[in-house]
This record gives sequence, structure tokens and C-alpha cells, in this order.
Amino acid sequence: MKGEKKVSNATVKRLPKYYRYLSDLHQVGISRVLSIDLGRQMEITPSQVRQDFFQFGCVGLQGYGYEVEPLMQEIGKILGLAQPNQMIIIGAGKLGRALANHPSFEKRGFKIIGMFDLNPHLIGKSVRGIEIQSMDALPEFAAGHAVDIAVITVPRMHAREAAEKVIRYGIKGIWNFASVEFEVPDDVAIEHIHLSESLMSLSYKLKEKRQALAEKLEEGYCWTYGLECGLR
Amino acid sequence: MKGEKKVSNATVKRLPKYYRYLSDLHQVGISRVLSIDLGRQMEITPSQVRQDFFQFGCVGLQGYGYEVEPLMQEIGKILGLAQPNQMIIIGAGKLGRALANHPSFEKRGFKIIGMFDLNPHLIGKSVRGIEIQSMDALPEFAAGHAVDIAVITVPRMHAREAAEKVIRYGIKGIWNFASVEFEVPDDVAIEHIHLSESLMSLSYKLKEKRQALAEKLEEGYCWTYGLECGLR
Repeated sequence: MKGEKKVSNATVKRLPKYYRYLSDLHQVGISRVLSIDLGRQMEITPSQVRQDFFQFGCVGLQGYGYEVEPLMQEIGKILGLAQPNQMIIIGAGKLGRALANHPSFEKRGFKIIGMFDLNPHLIGKSVRGIEIQSMDALPEFAAGHAVDIAVITVPRMHAREAAEKVIRYGIKGIWNFASVEFEVPDDVAIEHIHLSESLMSLSYKLKEKRQALAEKLEEGYCWTYGLECGLR
Repeated sequence: MKGEKKVSNATVKRLPKYYRYLSDLHQVGISRVLSIDLGRQMEITPSQVRQDFFQFGCVGLQGYGYEVEPLMQEIGKILGLAQPNQMIIIGAGKLGRALANHPSFEKRGFKIIGMFDLNPHLIGKSVRGIEIQSMDALPEFAAGHAVDIAVITVPRMHAREAAEKVIRYGIKGIWNFASVEFEVPDDVAIEHIHLSESLMSLSYKLKEKRQALAEKLEEGYCWTYGLECGLR
């Protein structure tokens, strides 16, 4: 990376969360923040927070903290948010339309400029002023617009084909909502949202919590109106 | 955990993906799978795959592999999928309705039994036969039904309040789509889907790929119709 400080992978993973938290603070008019408060929110130590920011040259003053806005902008730059990202949605079903209507993406500079589907019943309809086009129109659209990211919200059996198409038409970013993985060339960036996997993780955690409670009850403890009382 | 083998956290994290992959295999009629093939899919070594399964007593035979269906069922049991999980959706906006219509959740035993919203224009409408009810109806509903999971798809400024309500009414699982964190009691399980953060990570990766390409071009390489040719 020329002209930019190298940031470690671990730090990079935390940047979106920092950015989100800092923009929340900025929105409610907070101009300064201490590493201890940021750390609490991030569930890391204040010293880790300071080390993170030091990597890209942001140093806070002891007892003074960090200026929210410049820090947020610096992180935004590292995250590639300084320029807007133009997105298209492949799959204008309920999920695709829900994402097109999501208010927070545009606020972060992710602008939806096109929607595509195979379903003739959807083609020609509009979502927030964006006309749903046939997949056949994609090559021409991709050639005529600077599309940064394709959001894949087609049913999973069509996902691989959809991804191959967007890559063939030169789109380098894929945000994949179909529960299926695919290999992408080296110059293509991909992020997955695995809804079913997240739900299964929740189911596991829930089962664990219940088991822990059942064991505690077996050991002779019970909760009555929030009170823990030994029965032995 | 009584009567159950202890599975490491690292393995637990991989279980949803194993489960998804195994059920894909099962669906297309594959009855046996080798650890090397599973490993490739999971992006881990075959030996790591064998170690994972060994923890819950599943041992494959060399050259024979694992039986897909029993393995899948065992993992499903650990993930708490053996019993159905009943869900309600708090927030019947576009995202909530998109999730209610998502076909794969019910297939995994996650059944949506109620939807709630504050918006009087939505109350009384139905999604897949489920009537959208007023938030005021939630206490009675939660008392009368075994609700395992509440899905929070309200706008972020209402998310904390919504979470407090579902916890107060005794619901122990929260699947949170609002980009905001909140503390939950020890006996409550929570999973977050951070859409904006995922999108920011994608933006970062995309920027990195472009920079790498730009540096390569500066060094005197160019791609013409997919051909890499030195210009120096």
C-alpha cells in the first residue's frame, strides 16, 4: 500500500465496528472519546484501542482522548468509504428488495444503481425509483456504469451462475447472501452473509444456556421471581 | 453438559457450516464423504476434520469416510436442531417480512409463529398466513406460546427497547439485525447480523485488491484481454 500505513489484520477486522460506534457518537454530537470508553464498547482493553489507532497514526492525548470526527474519517478512508461504492442487486425477491430499502447503506456511501432478476413478473417494476431489469440487460449495464459491488440475493441454486456472470462482466466486489460458497478470482473481493449459520449458532447457544440452567436446577437451586435460593 | 461429549469452541464455530454442507450432500443423494473432501470445502485440513468429529464420537474409516446422514443428525443434535425452534419477528418492515418469507429457516426447524410491529398500517396484515400483531399483544402471546427466539428487525433506535421487552416476557434467544449492541442477562443467548459492518469489510477488501492491481500496473505490468504481459 503506497502512501498508507500498514494496518494489521486483527485491527482491520475491528475497523467497521469502530466506524459504526464513532459515527453513532458523531451523530449525537460527541466530539471526543476516551480509549477506555471505546474499549468497553469494543470489548477490548483501552491499550488495545490505542495500539489499533497508533497503526494509522492516530494518537490520543492522555486524559483528553481522541477527536471523534477526524478519527472516524481516517477509519472511513482505510475502509474505502471515502469514495461512494456503486452497487447492483442480483435477485429482486423479498430479500433483495429489503436490502434496496435499507436506509443505512446509502448513508455509508453504498448506492444502489441497478436491480436485476430472471422473473418476468418482477422485471419492469421499481424499488425506490430503481427499475428491476432482466438479467439479459446486465452486460450492457455493467459496461456502461461503474459498478463496484454486486449483491447476490438469488435462490442458492442460481447463486453460482449469478456470481460467474457478474465476475465475467468485470464487477470486482460480491456481497453474497446465498448460502453457498464459490471460488472467485484473485482480483475479486467477496463477503458472505450466512443467515442460516448464524441462526444455527443461536440455536446452539440457546441449548447451552438451557442445559446450564437445568444442571443448576438439578443441583438444587431454583429461581423464584428472580431470587436464587439454595434448596439443599 | 450431562450425557454429552464436550466439544471445543473452535469446533462449535464450524458446526453450522459442516451441517449446511452435509445437508447439501444429503439432498443430492450422497451417502458417504471423505474428510479430505469435507476439509477442502471447510478450508481446513482433513486431520482437523477428523479431530472435530472425534470430539463427539464420530470416527470415520480410512478410505471409507463418514456416513453423511448420521453425521449430519449428530451435528444437528449438538446445534439444538433436533427439536423445532419457535420464532417471532419483532418489526414487520421489509427486512422482517423478507425473513418471514425465507424458505430455508423452516427447513432447519425454525418456525415463525408470530410477527409484531408498532406501525398501525401493518397491524392486521398477514405474511405467509401469520398475522402482524400490535406490540401490545406481545406479553399475552409470549405467555401463551413457547417462543424460543425473537428476531429483532426494528429500526435501530427502537432495538434496545424491543430487546428489553422480549427478555422481560421470558424469551431466551435473540437474533438481532439492528446495528446496535445491548447487554443481555446471562441466561439469554444472542446472535447479531451486522449488515453494514460486512459491507464495510467488503469495501475494504475491494480497495485492497484495487491497490494491489494499481501497484502491479505501476511496476510495468498490464493485463490485456486476460493476458499478463511485462512492459519493461
